[in-house]
Amino acid sequence: MKIQSPDSSSPKKELPPVLAELHALIENDLEQTNRIIVEQLNAQVELIPTLGSHLINSGGKRLRPALTLLTAKMFGYSGDQHALLAAVIEFIHTATLLHDDVVDGSLTRRGSETANSVWGSKAPVLVGDFLFSRSFQILVSHGDLKVLEVVADACAIISEGEVLQLVVTKDLSTDEERYMQVVSSKTAALFSAAMQLGGILCKRSPEEIEHLANYGLLLGQAYQVVDDALDYSATQETLGKTIGDDFQEGKITLPVIHAYAQGNEEERAFWRLCLEDTNHPEGGLQRAIGIIKSRGSLDYAMKTAKRLADEAKEHLKKFPASEERDTMLKLADFAVNRNY
Amino acid sequence: MKIQSPDSSSPKKELPPVLAELHALIENDLEQTNRIIVEQLNAQVELIPTLGSHLINSGGKRLRPALTLLTAKMFGYSGDQHALLAAVIEFIHTATLLHDDVVDGSLTRRGSETANSVWGSKAPVLVGDFLFSRSFQILVSHGDLKVLEVVADACAIISEGEVLQLVVTKDLSTDEERYMQVVSSKTAALFSAAMQLGGILCKRSPEEIEHLANYGLLLGQAYQVVDDALDYSATQETLGKTIGDDFQEGKITLPVIHAYAQGNEEERAFWRLCLEDTNHPEGGLQRAIGIIKSRGSLDYAMKTAKRLADEAKEHLKKFPASEERDTMLKLADFAVNRNY
Repeated sequence: MKIQSPDSSSPKKELPPVLAELHALIENDLEQTNRIIVEQLNAQVELIPTLGSHLINSGGKRLRPALTLLTAKMFGYSGDQHALLAAVIEFIHTATLLHDDVVDGSLTRRGSETANSVWGSKAPVLVGDFLFSRSFQILVSHGDLKVLEVVADACAIISEGEVLQLVVTKDLSTDEERYMQVVSSKTAALFSAAMQLGGILCKRSPEEIEHLANYGLLLGQAYQVVDDALDYSATQETLGKTIGDDFQEGKITLPVIHAYAQGNEEERAFWRLCLEDTNHPEGGLQRAIGIIKSRGSLDYAMKTAKRLADEAKEHLKKFPASEERDTMLKLADFAVNRNY
Repeated sequence: MKIQSPDSSSPKKELPPVLAELHALIENDLEQTNRIIVEQLNAQVELIPTLGSHLINSGGKRLRPALTLLTAKMFGYSGDQHALLAAVIEFIHTATLLHDDVVDGSLTRRGSETANSVWGSKAPVLVGDFLFSRSFQILVSHGDLKVLEVVADACAIISEGEVLQLVVTKDLSTDEERYMQVVSSKTAALFSAAMQLGGILCKRSPEEIEHLANYGLLLGQAYQVVDDALDYSATQETLGKTIGDDFQEGKITLPVIHAYAQGNEEERAFWRLCLEDTNHPEGGLQRAIGIIKSRGSLDYAMKTAKRLADEAKEHLKKFPASEERDTMLKLADFAVNRNY
């Protein structure tokens, strides 16, 4: 089994400059992380590494493990445990994606077929469980209870967020606050944990770790808000998954919350029909995109994301300038300005 | 939300004497465990305790947490952490059942509707993830890395066993050794972990913990072998789930492995049709039960279970006689002689 390195894993498009810069900065660390991923995916049952590497190899940006590695490097870490913790972050991310895709019935991700579309929904549930378990085995071998606490807390928050997302699906009474709660839990909690692990590893003060956690949380929020906006604005080719998935599934995201609040009676009836009854008229997605644009709802979402990213940067600016810090500052801008 | 105590949770039938004795012996501990389960199921998202308690309340025998409690009591434990660890064992058991029932598409368990039959398959996947995560949060608060190691290892083994079971489904070349590997991983690993936690908590020697682990492993194996035999011999009313589920799903269990090996050409063709092609002729299950009886395959499975239970008891006999030990000895016999 070959795990591709992140910079060779996405043949369809060039890496944007900030990601290329980021990968160059921690190239060796990422390679070490990839080696650990291969080792730790090993199991007696061949389907586990096969299915696991299908997703891990599929050209993800390795953003979350990169945060752990960049943070460790920013503090001059010289040991070999950072790659182990980064691998755990990627495993947990992968486990949540496997379960997500089963729950959503998604057929494509990152331009490839999802695991459930290749193997059916049974194996991804169980391999996801394996990745969670293996993550905790690795953390036990690392032996730091504080690290275990951060990861266990993040996992609980993520699963709670996923359940919340399920509960608010098709419910147009969902407000922005509730939406941000979903975003914070299901996505931003792992960004935050990834940052904290770097800080804990380097024995930083609780105050510093708090800034790292907040940067991660706000970056993750901005990232997910943009993700949700892209579902109504990107092209399928650049996004690597089907456009309008959220719309089809009745997910209530920020553009919709804004457009629904601003809409006239007829538009609101349209949203209810599509999202609450998931009864999609011919051309429904195009009409949804049209309304969202005309109501300024994409602009609103992007402004929200920019505000979160700017706030994220403030927390990072508490640390002295360094290549790693400055790359993470740019990463916050990239989270907002990307088109996939 | 009310979590029923185990002895009031199964209104349909009287507890068999050994379970009544067992519950009486650790009544307070089980009550404390149930209180912790209620507390720890709490989450901001109401669906989590609702769905979790649906299964936890459904009249399970609480065998696995009882093992932790009995072991702690056998060693005279006087603290309050045993109930916490027992609750974790029940959470992990519940999480695996939630995921199992989704993977198998099962509609009934313990005589009630499964969570996936009430809420669909999405929520049980995510609530299962929550229970895993919450378990590790609890263990981190307990703070013993050895306990964390035992549980993380058990979880990895369980999920690996579940994947293996998936892989060998509908594959009649599965032999007894491979079958025992599935049984050991998916079921017996948690029985073994439950025993070990009791021993670790009471700071027993590695050799003693090894005996506890082996008792749990062998007990769990015997228990699952009987479970699989009951799928061809019990009545639906006593079993609390649909008879012939394994047969319908193409699961290759010990009675089938034996009957297939002993069968004539016509019987083997029947097994291939039913289990590999899952093409079930009218009256297929009745014919399968008939063949299994006539080939002595149920007897073979029950003898195997009895041998495992006897071996389990040998490990427990290394410890001085006590009410707890003797109840666990009887429990090994019950695992074999039960009819549900």
